[in-house]
Order: sequence, then C-alpha cells, then structure tokens
Amino acid sequence: MKLRYGIILTALVLLFADPASAFTDVAGTATESVEVAEENTFQAYGNEYSTLDEFKASTDYIKFIIDNLWILIAAFMVLMMHLGFATVESGLTQAKNAVNVIYKNVFILTIGIILYAFIGFQIMYPGDFNGFFGFGGFGIGFDASDPIGMLTPAYGLDMTIWTDFIFQAMFAATAATIVSGCVTGRIKLSSFMLFGVLLLAFAYPVTGSWHWGGGWLSELGFYDFAGSTLVHAVGGFAGLACVLLLGSRTGKYKDGKVHGIPAHNIPLATIGVFLLFLGWFGFNGGSVLSADPETVSYVFVTTALAACAGALASMITTQVVMKSLDAPMALNGILAGLVGITAGADVVSLMDAVAIGAIAGVIVVLSILMFDKLRIDDPVGAISVHGVCGIWGTVAVGIFSADYSFGIQLLGTLSIAAYTFIFSLIVFGAIKYTLGVRVSKEVESDGLDISEHKNHAYPDFSPVKTSELGAFAD
Amino acid sequence: MKLRYGIILTALVLLFADPASAFTDVAGTATESVEVAEENTFQAYGNEYSTLDEFKASTDYIKFIIDNLWILIAAFMVLMMHLGFATVESGLTQAKNAVNVIYKNVFILTIGIILYAFIGFQIMYPGDFNGFFGFGGFGIGFDASDPIGMLTPAYGLDMTIWTDFIFQAMFAATAATIVSGCVTGRIKLSSFMLFGVLLLAFAYPVTGSWHWGGGWLSELGFYDFAGSTLVHAVGGFAGLACVLLLGSRTGKYKDGKVHGIPAHNIPLATIGVFLLFLGWFGFNGGSVLSADPETVSYVFVTTALAACAGALASMITTQVVMKSLDAPMALNGILAGLVGITAGADVVSLMDAVAIGAIAGVIVVLSILMFDKLRIDDPVGAISVHGVCGIWGTVAVGIFSADYSFGIQLLGTLSIAAYTFIFSLIVFGAIKYTLGVRVSKEVESDGLDISEHKNHAYPDFSPVKTSELGAFAD
Amino acid sequence: MKLRYGIILTALVLLFADPASAFTDVAGTATESVEVAEENTFQAYGNEYSTLDEFKASTDYIKFIIDNLWILIAAFMVLMMHLGFATVESGLTQAKNAVNVIYKNVFILTIGIILYAFIGFQIMYPGDFNGFFGFGGFGIGFDASDPIGMLTPAYGLDMTIWTDFIFQAMFAATAATIVSGCVTGRIKLSSFMLFGVLLLAFAYPVTGSWHWGGGWLSELGFYDFAGSTLVHAVGGFAGLACVLLLGSRTGKYKDGKVHGIPAHNIPLATIGVFLLFLGWFGFNGGSVLSADPETVSYVFVTTALAACAGALASMITTQVVMKSLDAPMALNGILAGLVGITAGADVVSLMDAVAIGAIAGVIVVLSILMFDKLRIDDPVGAISVHGVCGIWGTVAVGIFSADYSFGIQLLGTLSIAAYTFIFSLIVFGAIKYTLGVRVSKEVESDGLDISEHKNHAYPDFSPVKTSELGAFAD
Repeated sequence: MKLRYGIILTALVLLFADPASAFTDVAGTATESVEVAEENTFQAYGNEYSTLDEFKASTDYIKFIIDNLWILIAAFMVLMMHLGFATVESGLTQAKNAVNVIYKNVFILTIGIILYAFIGFQIMYPGDFNGFFGFGGFGIGFDASDPIGMLTPAYGLDMTIWTDFIFQAMFAATAATIVSGCVTGRIKLSSFMLFGVLLLAFAYPVTGSWHWGGGWLSELGFYDFAGSTLVHAVGGFAGLACVLLLGSRTGKYKDGKVHGIPAHNIPLATIGVFLLFLGWFGFNGGSVLSADPETVSYVFVTTALAACAGALASMITTQVVMKSLDAPMALNGILAGLVGITAGADVVSLMDAVAIGAIAGVIVVLSILMFDKLRIDDPVGAISVHGVCGIWGTVAVGIFSADYSFGIQLLGTLSIAAYTFIFSLIVFGAIKYTLGVRVSKEVESDGLDISEHKNHAYPDFSPVKTSELGAFAD
Repeated sequence: MKLRYGIILTALVLLFADPASAFTDVAGTATESVEVAEENTFQAYGNEYSTLDEFKASTDYIKFIIDNLWILIAAFMVLMMHLGFATVESGLTQAKNAVNVIYKNVFILTIGIILYAFIGFQIMYPGDFNGFFGFGGFGIGFDASDPIGMLTPAYGLDMTIWTDFIFQAMFAATAATIVSGCVTGRIKLSSFMLFGVLLLAFAYPVTGSWHWGGGWLSELGFYDFAGSTLVHAVGGFAGLACVLLLGSRTGKYKDGKVHGIPAHNIPLATIGVFLLFLGWFGFNGGSVLSADPETVSYVFVTTALAACAGALASMITTQVVMKSLDAPMALNGILAGLVGITAGADVVSLMDAVAIGAIAGVIVVLSILMFDKLRIDDPVGAISVHGVCGIWGTVAVGIFSADYSFGIQLLGTLSIAAYTFIFSLIVFGAIKYTLGVRVSKEVESDGLDISEHKNHAYPDFSPVKTSELGAFAD
Repeated sequence: MKLRYGIILTALVLLFADPASAFTDVAGTATESVEVAEENTFQAYGNEYSTLDEFKASTDYIKFIIDNLWILIAAFMVLMMHLGFATVESGLTQAKNAVNVIYKNVFILTIGIILYAFIGFQIMYPGDFNGFFGFGGFGIGFDASDPIGMLTPAYGLDMTIWTDFIFQAMFAATAATIVSGCVTGRIKLSSFMLFGVLLLAFAYPVTGSWHWGGGWLSELGFYDFAGSTLVHAVGGFAGLACVLLLGSRTGKYKDGKVHGIPAHNIPLATIGVFLLFLGWFGFNGGSVLSADPETVSYVFVTTALAACAGALASMITTQVVMKSLDAPMALNGILAGLVGITAGADVVSLMDAVAIGAIAGVIVVLSILMFDKLRIDDPVGAISVHGVCGIWGTVAVGIFSADYSFGIQLLGTLSIAAYTFIFSLIVFGAIKYTLGVRVSKEVESDGLDISEHKNHAYPDFSPVKTSELGAFAD
C-alpha cells in the first residue's frame, strides 16, 4: 500500500476516533444508553410505571419486544425489495446496460440510507412543524440524555427510535430507485447520481412529512397506509419528469412505430418481481407499526390477494389487447396489484382488495401501451406501475372505504405527484442545462456498462448484434 | 386510453364498490371487525375470559401475538419457495422454454391463491364432514358477526383466521407447480392452465381434507406433519400421470439411448434450490402452528440435517453410479432430503433425520435414472424428488417413530397418491382428447417462449444450435 | 432399480431404525423430551420456579419464546448468506468454473452442518476446558435425561439447545466457503473437499472456542461480537495460505502485468452480495442471542450504516485510484463494511459505524490491488474482504470503544489469523505433496465444470473465445 493511502487511512481513523468530534450528536451506543436508563426514574412513559425496571417487568414490555422485533424483520424484508429493484430493472433492460442499472441502484440504496440518517429522517418526521416543511436537526435525533424517551414506548411508537429509523430508512431509497428504472440506457451516471441525491434529500422526505410526519395532508384526513402515493407515486412522477427531459432511447420510436427493446434476462426480472412481492409483506405488514395480530394478518391477506388479482388481470388484458401472453406484462401485473393495495391494505375488504388489484392489473397494461403511444420511453414500465397505479391505489381508498373521502384522496395524491413532478422538472432541468443528462449516441450504442464502468455484465458470452435483435423485437 | 377500456374499468369499479355486492360473504375488514369485537362479550373462548378486554390483558394474548406473527413470517418463507420453484424449474430446462416455465408458475401461484380464497380453503377445512369430501362454503369463512370466534384462539388455532388462510394458501399452489416442472418443454400452455386449475380446485384440497381437515386418514392415525404426501407426493403423482399422457420431449429417447437435455442455467437452478431450502424452514417450522420453542427449534434442526444428508448422499450415489459429480443431482439431493423429512420432522430423532435425508438422497438419484430407463421424461426430476421421496418420507415415519403404524402410513400415502394419479389421468386425459395437450413438433423445436409468449428469455445472446448442443449432452 | 441398490437401501433403513443403534446419544425427540420434562420438577432454573409448569406460566417463558424465535429466524437469515456466497463467488469468476464453485459450496455447507452436529459444536463449546482445545463429546450434547436443562433458560441461553445449535451451525460452514472463493478456477475438487472438512473440523471450532467457547481470549477481555475475526478472518487467512501454495490462475500475471479475468455474471454477483447484506442482519442481529429491543435494533442500524459507508467509500476510492466505476469493487465495498462492523456492531457509536465501514471500503480496494501487485491471485477478493477487513473490524473495536484494549484486540485477531494460516499451510501443504492440489493446465483451460462435473453452467449459449476475452479484460 502506498504511503499516501496509509496517511489518508490514519487521518480518517483519527478523525472519527476523536471523542470531541463535531458529529457526536449522531452518536450514542446501546451500552451507554442502557446504563443511563437504568439509573434514571421512568418518568417519560405516561404515569403507569414509575421506574424503567417496573416497566421492564410488565407485560407491556413484552409486547414492546414483539412489536419492535417484527418491525426489524419487516425492515429486513424491505431491504429485500432493493435487490428486487436491482434485478427487475437490470433484467428488463438490455444486457449492455445491466451493470449500470445495478451500480445506480447500489449507489442510491447506500447514499439513500446514509442521507436519511444525516438529514432525511428529521425532515420527514420533524416533530411540530408548519405542515409543509420542517427540519428537526441533523442525525436520527437520538438524545443520549433521554434514553428512556428514545428506547421505550415513550418514544411514541412501540419500538425503539433505532427500529423506527431503520424501517423508514429502508423505504427511503425506493423513490429514487424507481426513477433509475425509467431513465435506464441513456442517462449520464453522474447526473443521475446528483439528481437522486437531491430527490432523496429534498423531495421524498418533504412530501412524506405532509402525511406520515403529521403535516397538512394528515390534518385533512388523507390516508395512505404504506405509501401508494408517498413512496410509489413519488418515484413514478419523478421518473416521468426525467423521461420527458431525457428523451427516449435511440431507435425506440422510429417511422411512427414502436420498436420494442426486449428485456434481456427474464429469469432475472422474475427474481426481481418475486423479491418485491416477498418484501412487500414487510413494506405493508411492517407499516402496521406493531405486531397486532388482527391488522398484520389482515394486511398480509389483502396484499397477497391484490398481487394475485393484478397478475391475472394483466395476463387477461395482455391477451385481449396485445394478443400475446407477454411475461414481463404478467410480472408487472403483480407489481401493479401490490402498488394498488398499498394505500388501503388495512381498510378495504378482502373482495375489494381483489378488485383493487385486478383493476391495477388492467390499468398497468393500458398505461404502458399509452406511454409508448405518447413516445414516452420507460424501459421497465415504472411510471405505469408505480406512478399511475400509485394514484389508483390512493383514490381507491376513497372509493372502497366509507371512512375516507374520495376528494381528499385525490387531492392528496395529486398534490404529492405534482410537487414531485415539478421538483424533478426543475432540478433535472437545471442539471440538463448545466452538466447535461444524456450520454452520447456512441456511448448509448456501445452500452453504458463498458463506457461508464469498464465492465460487461456477461463477458464470457457473445452478444447478438443489434441487427439480429430486430428479428424478434416486435 | 380508448373509450371502451375506460368503460370496462368504470364498470369494474362500480361492480366491486357496490355495497350490495353478491360477494360480501368473502369480505370483512379489520377495522369493522375490531369494533364489533370490542362491543361483544367474550363468550367464544372457553370460560376463562368473560370479555375480549380481559383476554387482551392476559399473557395468553401475548402468546397469541407471537404464534400469529411466526405463522405470518412462515407464510412469507413459503412464498419464497415459489420463487424457488420458478427458478429451479426454469434453470433445469432449456433456455428456449424458460419464459414458459416462469409464466406457468406465475399463473399457478396467483390463480392458486385466488382459488384457495374462493373455494379451496373451505374444501380442505370443511368443518364437520363425511371424511372424504366436504365444502364449508365460498370464501375463507370469515363470519363478520363473530369476530371473536375468528380473530382469537377461539378459532381453534393460536392465530387469526387470516393467518391460517394465508399460510395454507401459500402451500396450495405448490402441488400444481410441481407438475409444471414435469411437463415442461412440450405442453400446451392453455391445457396446462386448465389442468392446474382443476387440480387445485378438486384434488389438492380434497386429499388435504382427508388428513389436515380431519377426514378419514386422520381418524385412522395417519401422520404427515407438513406434507411429504399431502403436498409433495400429490404434485409428483399428478406430474407422473401427465407425463405418461404427454410423452417425452422429442429426441430425449432415441435409438434405445437416453440423450440428456442439459439444464440451461445451473446458477439459476442453484438459486431455486437454496430458496426452497430457505423457505422449507417456514414450510416445516410453520407447520408447528405455533412458536412453541421446543418443537419449532427441533423441527429446524431435523429439517437442516435431512437436507444436508440428502445432498451428501446424492453426491456419493451419483459418483458411484454415474461416475460423475453432477451438480443438478447434488441440488436434487437437498430437495430429496427436505421432502423426506417433511412428514416426520417433529417426531423422529436427530439421527433418524440424518438417515431419512440420506436415504432420500440415494433414492432420488436411483429414481431419476429409473424413470429415464422407463422412458418417462421428467425434465427436472420432480416425480422422483416430490413423488417418490414424498412416499419415502411418509412411510419413514412408520419406520422410525414408534408412535405411528407403518401400515397406516403406507395406506395413507398410497391412497392419496392413487387418488391424485387417477384424478390426473382422467382429467388430463379428457383434456388430451378434446383440446389436446401437446404442442406441435415445430413449436417444440423453436421453443415455447417464442411461440406462446413472443418472448426470449435472453434475447441479447445467441443460442447454441441444437446440433452443437449434442456435443456435451451425455 | 437394481437388486443391489435395494439391498443397500434396506440395510440403511434397518441400521438407522435399530433402536439399539450406537448413535443414540445424538438422538432425542421433541415429543419424548417434553413428556419427561412435564414429569420432573424444575430444579435446574435457579430457584425461582419449582416446576416446569410454573415456569411456563410466567412472563419469563414468554420472553424465552420470543428470544428463541428470533434466533431461529436469524439462523434462516444466515443460511441465506450461503446462497449469497454461492452466487457471488460463481458470479465473480468465469463461466467455465461456475458449476464447480456451486458444487464446492453445496458440499461445504452440507458437510459443514453435519460435521458441526457430530463434532464441531462440542469442540467450539466444550464446557469447562483448558482454554485452548476441548471436546465435550460427540453429537450436539442433548441429554435426554435432563430436558429441562436443555430446553429452558437453564441451558444458559434464552433459547433451546437446538436453536443454539442451528444458529451456530449456519455460521460454521462460512469459513471454508470463503476459502472456496479464493482458490476457484484451478483447485482439484477432491483436495479442496478434504481441506474444507479438516478446516471445519479442527480449525474453525478451535479458534472459536478461544473466545465464544469461553477460552483464553475471552479471559483476556478480547471482544469479537459476531465474528469479524472468528468467522471472517479465519476464512480469509485460510484462503491466503491456500492461494500461496496453489499459485495463480494461468495467464493472470504475465509479462509483469496483471491480466484481469472479469467476473462472468455481474447480476449473479449482485444477487450474492445483496443476499449476504440481507443475511448479515441475522448474522449480527442474531448474535445478540436474544430479541432485546435496544441491542438488536441498534445492531441493525450500525450494520446497515457500515455497509452503506463501505459501498460509498469503495466507489470513491475506485474512482480515485482506478479511474473507473467498477461494479464488483462497489459490491465488495458493501461486504467490506459488513465484515468491518461485525466485531463491534453493539459497542460503537452510529458515527463510528459509518467510519468503520468507510475505512473498510477504502481498505478493501487498496488491499485487492496490493494482492494483485504481489501476484497473489484471489479471484473474488475474499482475502481482502474477509481477511484484511476482518482484522480491521476487530482492531477497530479497540480504537473506537473505550471499553476494549487495542492491544488485546490486535493480539486476539492476529493469534487467530496466525493459527488458521499456519494450520492451513501445514494441512494444505500436506495435501499438495501427497494428493496434489492443482488441476492440469488442460483442465484449467477447459474449465473445471466440464472436467470435474460434466456440466456446463450455461450450455445453451456459446462462450466467447479466450482470445476475444482479452478485448475487454481490465
């Protein structure tokens, strides 16, 4: 190892090992906090328990253990969705861009979690705020002087602040990952990375605060259980704005016709969709924020039924409209059903869950075809799956549940979609006219993998030439 | 979007949003039911608790939360097995049929869960019945007027009816998915879909009711813990019937020799087998139907030991018999061990679990070779893995556990295998002589992916020509 | 089936079904043990509960159920890591060796668990011993006459002996699987299998006993929470010894230059890394050995932050040092961060977790480049990821936590790395000079898949010729 690397490493170690580090507000260790907690009286938790020991001897504490454990497992399941996104998005695009898709997703996931730890969590959950934008401070807000407040139900949830953070952090990167799918095959990597960071810092947590953070939409009675709008429509409409500014892949729309560019690895895309399906039980089931038997089990059933109905409906619709049994459409049908049920998984009947999923499965096929007619090139169908079905799922709560207003559901979903769309137009537009957003024709033709990464996804195999590709592209 | 699609969508929304819908017996929402429950007295749960509130304040309720949560997580793990089936079956067959395998599995999984919600669950668990066939009614049997009965241990299990349903539903599609592997590469998609639906509607839940539903086999003292017979042998023997009617793939058996058609993607098949291994901990561990520490942990250990012994035994057997270290055989050894231990995972000793798994690992290799000698073409070895090892696992309970009768175990497994086999012969035979079950030689040669789906699994890569393929096919 | 197979099978069944089997000390069934337990008084558990029934009616028992369940789920998650290893190692090497990698991993996982059941568990946890080497006896140590001792907290952990065993067993095979990655592409299969068995039998559990088994390192105050050293450095330094004896792949270092041999399937490697990331939450989170809300949730957060920081740091370092955005390096950055945090996940601050992960992400890139300069050929970078970052993570505990001594951390990690390295030099050296460890040039050139297994990983696709491969190698 060269000397200079050794110096950099040593400096890094010293910097972070410095106990007087400026970042200590983010710190706090389990061991220390427990020790403090044991010494203090247990004032924070209502008036029921006068000491922490008393609380820990109670059955309320055992419920706390269970609820906390379930949300941690749900966080694990939501992380599984990120592997799902990486595989479905790379599988549905061309082999020459597969590494690039994966690299983008690894970057977005990892920077997303770090950003969420440093600023996002406290933008999304700022505490008391004006209802539109707030910021609770840097870090995840752990107050080492009040561990009881942070590590018991006194925090306000039946989980520790760390569980709350990690579950929310696993959601956070999702929105930008959805965009990644829409813009694949022609976007400049550095520009995407910059846009993704800004979206995750200043769009996702802001609209998130409007509802889950207790902002103006929650005041109005808007309801989005696990994020049909707050997560999925945000990703879809950010993606739409980017695609409008970026343009379609070369050759996709030519001579007034749509030249399909087929998914390069359908087994890989299948792995992705199933991992998303699997992880969604954590996404929806964890959004109950406890292990309450009735609600969590109910949400598992509505989630599964909607996914299945979505798949079947998209299979039928594809057969009727396209006269084929297209596999990617069937897979997108599963996702459409899942996005559709996400807003109301706990408040609609089982039969309504089937209906919501089935309608999402019809919508996703028609929407994908419509965007192609409009020459809006979304290689993986993410605008339709997450954007359009996200809106459908949110308004469906207003249609199928008597407890929520159709108008407010529509207002909420459109407000958030509009904020995200406009934010993205401005930010991505600014990047476009400064750094540029599109790779050269040559790079696009060679593929981003070799140009940006010097990697091939499958170097041991010879790719089909583009001319041959036309043979089975419809 | 064209007008007619708008009309269809609107009609669908109105139909399902209609509060007087004919399907309301399937419905019921968590919120409503909880409200009703809070008002009623808690009569259903023995005489120990006089109100629901009293029950919810008890430690019995906390155990209920844990048990319920574990079975939900187990349901998630069993869903993982369906990704396992999709990947192992597509990986072990040819590239030109990979999309078709996946499409079939997506269809079977999704229609399977929907069918199980509408009719299967109440055929399998009909309540009091004649022991051979019963039907409790449409839907999952949620009685909105008796939520206490359905959402507490009064239901009869330490989980809600929804948890019970979703766990069982994840099992349900398995049988038909196993068939999908056996018939791959030459079956007409529509005929398979029809057969799969009939099998899931009228075979799997019927034989299921004989034991798990409290029917005649449970009366006799038959024991199949998690489904060596009820799930796996059912799939294997349905598959055998179909293969006998369908015939072998063209060129597999020619000039008195077996021309192996190699697995097209062994990493993909490996992913599949490991996902099945992983999910099996939910399949077996969840079949405890509670989080009882002794039994669930014991079942985890027997399951793991049998899987490992199965792999090692199949590796040795393959080396001895075939003079090679064939990877798919090793992978099938894991599955064989798992199928073998499934019937008795909670009642055999650890050493017996090793023995049962090892014997299954020997059996699976010999069985696969035997079926090839008999010119019965099972591309993925599913008849051997699930059918033959399913029977082995079931009779092994009679051999290794003093509490169960060898004779009754044999009777039970053969009865169910025979019912399924004959059912499949009749139904698939009827389809054969009406709609036809086999694709044309041309479609088979081109591959089902392009013919049935207009998709290639890997369009960016040039396939080896069939003539070259022979070079390393043994 | 031929007669002789029938006879072998019958003999096996009789052998194991023999109630007087010599192996019955390994046996014991859940059902029997429960019955015994119900009859005995509950003497083993302190003096708090006089009978088992009394204990089972307590809230302590409910905590026991939860803790036990969480460790079982964590075991499931650690098994997921083995699929991660199989896919990342096969993905990062050449297509012609992919089956061989998978076969080795299946063998090591399955023999590893079986060996651990027969001898490893009681070498690693021998009870009272001299601190350097002990052996508690064959089997997992279940004492059928004292089920209360084994199936309640009286065992010493808040889980049953079976849960403890299966969680530890899932760890056990890891060390040898790491070696598998280092030696891929030129090692004789049988020699690797022999070495792996000896490593798992006489190295991993021995050094494991020094700390987790209560040996001399734990006496000294050494701390390795979940195995940066005990698991990962063991694998990495065993791998280093093997690579030194085995030599590099033909053509990797030629004419004084490094000729990169690119990863053959980056999506497959990505699946592997994400599965490792996912499973690591069980690896670290389960190492809490209970579901304690504060510690488990805290460990989830430090684990996630370190992984993310590792990825980002390796991306930056790769860009600075190699002037590229190499995808495998980014993926290895995730793993480096995870290995780095494993020793101290519960005792460092969140900010320190970011630092530890980031430094690991820098180290891994420099280390991989350094080993290439030294002409030490590690196809997947495992020596750097697991060996070097394992040491880093262990000494980082001494740097970042005031409770542990830098000197003892360094002593501990170097002692274990040295023992493993020397053990591997001797054992693998002995194999080298007797059986041989390296395949012939011809076998290496053709690939191990076809030579050792008669399988191709992807037989339906034509590989690029070696000459073409140079075009985009490094």
